[in-house]
Amino acid sequence: MDDREVRIIEIKKSVYENNDREAERLRGELREKGVFLINLMSSPGAGKTTTLIATINALKDRYRIGVMEADIDSDVDAKRIASTGVTSIQLHTGGMCHLDAGMTRQGLEEIGYEGFDLIFLENVGNLVCPAEFDTGASANAMILSVPEGDDKPLKYPLMFSICDMVLINKTDVIPYFDFDLDRCREGIAMRNDHASVIPICAKTGEGIDLWTAWISEQIEAWKN
Amino acid sequence: MDDREVRIIEIKKSVYENNDREAERLRGELREKGVFLINLMSSPGAGKTTTLIATINALKDRYRIGVMEADIDSDVDAKRIASTGVTSIQLHTGGMCHLDAGMTRQGLEEIGYEGFDLIFLENVGNLVCPAEFDTGASANAMILSVPEGDDKPLKYPLMFSICDMVLINKTDVIPYFDFDLDRCREGIAMRNDHASVIPICAKTGEGIDLWTAWISEQIEAWKN
Repeated sequence: MDDREVRIIEIKKSVYENNDREAERLRGELREKGVFLINLMSSPGAGKTTTLIATINALKDRYRIGVMEADIDSDVDAKRIASTGVTSIQLHTGGMCHLDAGMTRQGLEEIGYEGFDLIFLENVGNLVCPAEFDTGASANAMILSVPEGDDKPLKYPLMFSICDMVLINKTDVIPYFDFDLDRCREGIAMRNDHASVIPICAKTGEGIDLWTAWISEQIEAWKN
Repeated sequence: MDDREVRIIEIKKSVYENNDREAERLRGELREKGVFLINLMSSPGAGKTTTLIATINALKDRYRIGVMEADIDSDVDAKRIASTGVTSIQLHTGGMCHLDAGMTRQGLEEIGYEGFDLIFLENVGNLVCPAEFDTGASANAMILSVPEGDDKPLKYPLMFSICDMVLINKTDVIPYFDFDLDRCREGIAMRNDHASVIPICAKTGEGIDLWTAWISEQIEAWKN
């Protein structure tokens, strides 16, 4: 555990009545400034922070990266991220189970988003509520970890339907779980026929090259 | 997968303004009728259904057991439970991320709760929102699975603070994860000094005897 200090922001409830409209406005502003924002979601413990660290280490020489770590409490994630050397702030949601566009904007203003090419928003660990609120991100990505089971696309339909990318993490433990990668891919495709799916192992680095190549492609496509 | 038909109930939003009061009322009614209700919570994929099946098989000769499986969509869990021979109904929350006392009451009325000694409510897979709403249950239990990590009590404080029992599931895979049982116990104790903690492996049956003994003790204490 890294013991450096990280900035903690206490996020306030949003004042915007129409979140979808506010999200579109935020997405437009980010585009104008050349900042690509990835909203990363998953269940608790699926490996968002470990995946982010591997991703940052692979991309930090190419892009100016910032990270906003949302959590109900604690700052352990932001400290882990800070150990990579990139700017990381912790957003405390005060018990709230998701982030919306207004809350994301509070974080972006605190981190000073204009200085970055690529910002990751690590959403609250939850497969339900974060899927219901557009954060204004340029892309939505989620992590499903092998121990959670290959049936999750059947049980959390909205989350799988809104993601541009599904990372299937902890592939190193497939031998110890009853997890069928093909069945999982079929379940995802049933919810969402445009999502990319990449099996990864954040711990060993497997698949991180494919994921970071996807990010670079998205950024290039979005710039043009 | 068992292919028998299960009854699916589409749960409606609650009409009660004061959930805590409605929960106390429901808890009182259940007590009067001699029905012990356990609200079982966890992250997605922590093993609620597998744990319930092992629990039911250990207790079904002693108690008349009913199960209410809450899910946003799908009926896979209720079908798995039905294979044990006990009565199981599926509650569809229509996207809602938790159950409250009014929604629990809808399920209890559908299952006909007066005919049971012990009813399990499998809540929506989510460590955030279900912790905020008292369901009226006689006891709250949660499952934390080893792959999620031993730091979860730090990150989801409310959930750990409201539970009478924390089951630590999937102990068979401890060798493949960086999970420290003592550190996890310390984290739980920090949030809640009255919660019991039992390591289990629902798949192999390890610890299920301790958990079912706890349930029987709770029921006896509650009857007297």
